[in-house]
Formats: sequence, C-alpha cells, structure tokens
Amino acid sequence: MERFSFNQATAQHWPLAAAVAGCAAAGVPGIGLWREPVQEYGLDRAARLVRAAGLTVTSLCRGGFFTTPDWWDENRRAIEEAATLGTRELVLVSGGLPPGSRDVDGARRQVADAVAALADEATAAGVRLAIEPLHPMFSADRCVIATLGQALDIAERFDPAVVGVVVDTYHVWWDDTVYAQIARAGDRIAAFQAADWVTPLPEGVLLGRALPGEGCVQLRRLREAVDAAGYTGPVEVEVFQAALWSRPGPDILAATIDAYLTHVS
Amino acid sequence: MERFSFNQATAQHWPLAAAVAGCAAAGVPGIGLWREPVQEYGLDRAARLVRAAGLTVTSLCRGGFFTTPDWWDENRRAIEEAATLGTRELVLVSGGLPPGSRDVDGARRQVADAVAALADEATAAGVRLAIEPLHPMFSADRCVIATLGQALDIAERFDPAVVGVVVDTYHVWWDDTVYAQIARAGDRIAAFQAADWVTPLPEGVLLGRALPGEGCVQLRRLREAVDAAGYTGPVEVEVFQAALWSRPGPDILAATIDAYLTHVS
Repeated sequence: MERFSFNQATAQHWPLAAAVAGCAAAGVPGIGLWREPVQEYGLDRAARLVRAAGLTVTSLCRGGFFTTPDWWDENRRAIEEAATLGTRELVLVSGGLPPGSRDVDGARRQVADAVAALADEATAAGVRLAIEPLHPMFSADRCVIATLGQALDIAERFDPAVVGVVVDTYHVWWDDTVYAQIARAGDRIAAFQAADWVTPLPEGVLLGRALPGEGCVQLRRLREAVDAAGYTGPVEVEVFQAALWSRPGPDILAATIDAYLTHVS
Repeated sequence: MERFSFNQATAQHWPLAAAVAGCAAAGVPGIGLWREPVQEYGLDRAARLVRAAGLTVTSLCRGGFFTTPDWWDENRRAIEEAATLGTRELVLVSGGLPPGSRDVDGARRQVADAVAALADEATAAGVRLAIEPLHPMFSADRCVIATLGQALDIAERFDPAVVGVVVDTYHVWWDDTVYAQIARAGDRIAAFQAADWVTPLPEGVLLGRALPGEGCVQLRRLREAVDAAGYTGPVEVEVFQAALWSRPGPDILAATIDAYLTHVS
C-alpha cells in the first residue's frame, strides 16, 4: 500500500472531506486532487484537511488547456494551488484544437510555448509541470499531445525538476513505442496513473475507463517499466466511469485498493 | 473527378447494383467494395456488373482479423475475391486482441506472421496486401496496428508490390509523425482513404466519421503528402455514419463528391 494513491476523480461524487477521511481510515497514504472540488471546499482549508489527515497530495489535476483564452491566468493559479496543497506535480492536459481550427501543428507549438512561459513560475513555486499525453481519441477536443514521445519532445527542453511527463496506462498502452519512451523518460516521470481499457466505449468516450484488472492493459508490466526507468513515486489509480461513480465512496475506495493490489502493485 | 472513388460503405444501405449504376451515372470512375455485399450479390456477378458499368474497383475491404481462428481460409478467399473483382488492393484490418487476452505484442507478431504466410498467395493472384492502421481507439477490439509506422515496420519486410499500407486520414491525422511516415511509405502506399474527424464520438465509436470538410482533419495536406510520396492512385472517400447512411444513396453520393472536390482534391 505504501505507493498507492487514490485519485479523487475515481469517486467523482464523494465530497472532499469524506474522501480524505475515508482514505485516512483505510490506511491510504496518498490522494490525487482536482482543482474544482478543492476550490469548492476552499484551497487553504483543503490543504489543512489533507495535512491533518496525514495524507500526501500526490498530484493536482489539472492545468493546461493552453488553447483557451484564459490559459495564462488559470495556469498561474493552478501552480499556486499545487504549491499550497503541498504537491510537487501539476498535471497538464494540453487542450485540443481551438473551435473551428484544423491547425494541429499550431496547437502543439502553442503547448510548447505555454510550458516555456510557465517554467519560471513553476520553478519559483517548487512545482513540476507534468505534461500528460492523452489517448489520440482526445486529440481534437481535449489534448493535442497524444503520445509519450510527443510529451517528452517538449519536456526535454527543460530541467527535469521543472517539466516532467505523466504516464497514464489508459492513454499509452496501445503505443508500440511506449516501453522505449518510458525508458527515455527516466527521471522525467512525474506521475504514474493506472486505469484499464474496456470496450465498447461509451458516447463521448470520456467515461469508458475501468478499474485495474477489468480490461486488456498490461498494468503490472507498465508499472514495472516506469520502476525500471527509475520512478519510485506513487501509483495513482484514476478511473472515470459512470457505473463506478454511482457506488458509495467507501465501496469505490475498497474496490480500487483491491484492484491496485491485485493487478498493479 | 479522375481520382475519385466512392467506397460503398459510405452508403451502407444502398444495394450494390444501384450503387454501381449511381456511380456510373455520376461519372465516378472508381468504387471501393466490401466483401459482404459482394458475396451477397454473387462474386462473379458483381465482377461483371462493375466491369459492364466501366468502373474500376479501387480496393476490396477487407481481409485481416488475424487473431480469429478462421483467418487463413478467410484471407485466402479474400485474395481470390480481390483478383476476381479486378482490384489489386486488398485492405487488411488486423483484428484486435483475442477475447480475454492482454498480449498486444503477441497479437502484433501474429499479424506479421499472417502477412508472411499470405504473401505467396497474394503474389500469385496479383493482389497486394494493404495493411491499414486503424486509430488507436480500435486497438483492443479491431486492429492492433495503430500507426502508419507500425504498418510500415511489417510491410517493409516484403516486396512493395506484394505488401503495402493504407493511409486513411481518419485513422492517422492525430499522429505527429504521420508526414514523416507517409514520406517513408513511398511506393508502399496502396490506398488513400479520406474521412473527417468530428466529436463527440458516438457509443462504440465506429460510426463517428464525417464527410470531408465537416471536421478538423487537414485532408488536402494529407492528400498532397501522399502525392509527394509518389502516390498517384485513387482517392477513396469512406465514411461510416448513421445519419449519412439514413439518406438515399444518390444523395449520399452527391454529397460525397461535393465534399471530395471541395476539401480533398
């Protein structure tokens, strides 16, 4: 259990305070937080809450969306929030194409430029910008960074302490170069997240993930690969799934821990 | 219009004889056929029908599905059917993971082995095995070959006259290496298919494609890239979309021609 972290989005409807208490009661050492529920609860109050519960905040989701007009203010705020919560890893989901645009190269350049623009702020705050490649089915509307190789092409322009990458099994498992890219990533691996792939995908595809063990992803192999690359950090389980979300928070946590111990750790 | 080909799956419910007549009447020079409607109509009869109409069969969809038990017999039959229809290009969709399997590497090896096993048959029949990478959202259940690079890794083991690749804009547009891979493909480009990417994706994701111009894909740029790589063959438009399929065949063909002329040619 020492590396397990519960990403709060796995129990989307579990209020923050209850989720934190539930994790602490279950002996979970880490939690991955999202900006919206933290803001709703109050940033400073959330920081005190997790500290008092003895939990480590393993990452904050998420900055990014660099193709929207307010990206600069939003990402500066996200960096501050990460620092306040005491986590080093700010997950960045780059954003998709601007409405009506077909300029995928331009959108990708914008991501690289935005990361460069934010690097000093992140350094000053002691926060790492963790670029997350999302599955290519999200390239148009959510994340133009579609592979680990692409994320590393950007990250490698910076100090590994300032810009890293997220390896999320759900997004990268299909890539025949993923093991080579994980080895390449080395100390740039800022976070490792686990979810499984199942079909058929639901409408909109966002909520199609499954708990570890329910799908076709070689989760343990991927976890061993990030370990072999030198990663010693937490293993977050992050599953977006409507059926799972409809269950009570403590049940979701118990099922997630079980799935993690059986199929990932 | 001289390079335009109408893939019959774009008008899924248009009977073969009507589709062939419709294409001929509209001055369409080529048609892409599917095995099931051809078998239903009768293979020899279908071959005579398209010949009498003066249409070129630009490709036959599809062989492949190499992880199913009857792949050998099915693919030998598909090669014969392509030869009978007078097309050189047999599109291969590799198939996904066998039920319950997580061995994506093994499934990919099986594809390479199957192509090797079929190469002599194909050569004898004058048919090219055209490996089609499908978008990674299909990797689990439909096609473990997810990128043009991967398809070429297999195809390059063979004579370019015997094993080639399909470039379908819908499947490859998101890939930041796609233009480099198209240049690499050169005379291995066996077919070029055009469809556009729109969101949100529908449940099951198979029927989410759009006519050229309706989505975010740089269709003309991709067509120019295959041309620059030396491809001079037909440009098939192939769109799977429930709403489009509900329209009368002649309307679909007219809309497809218009979309092709405006956004691809």
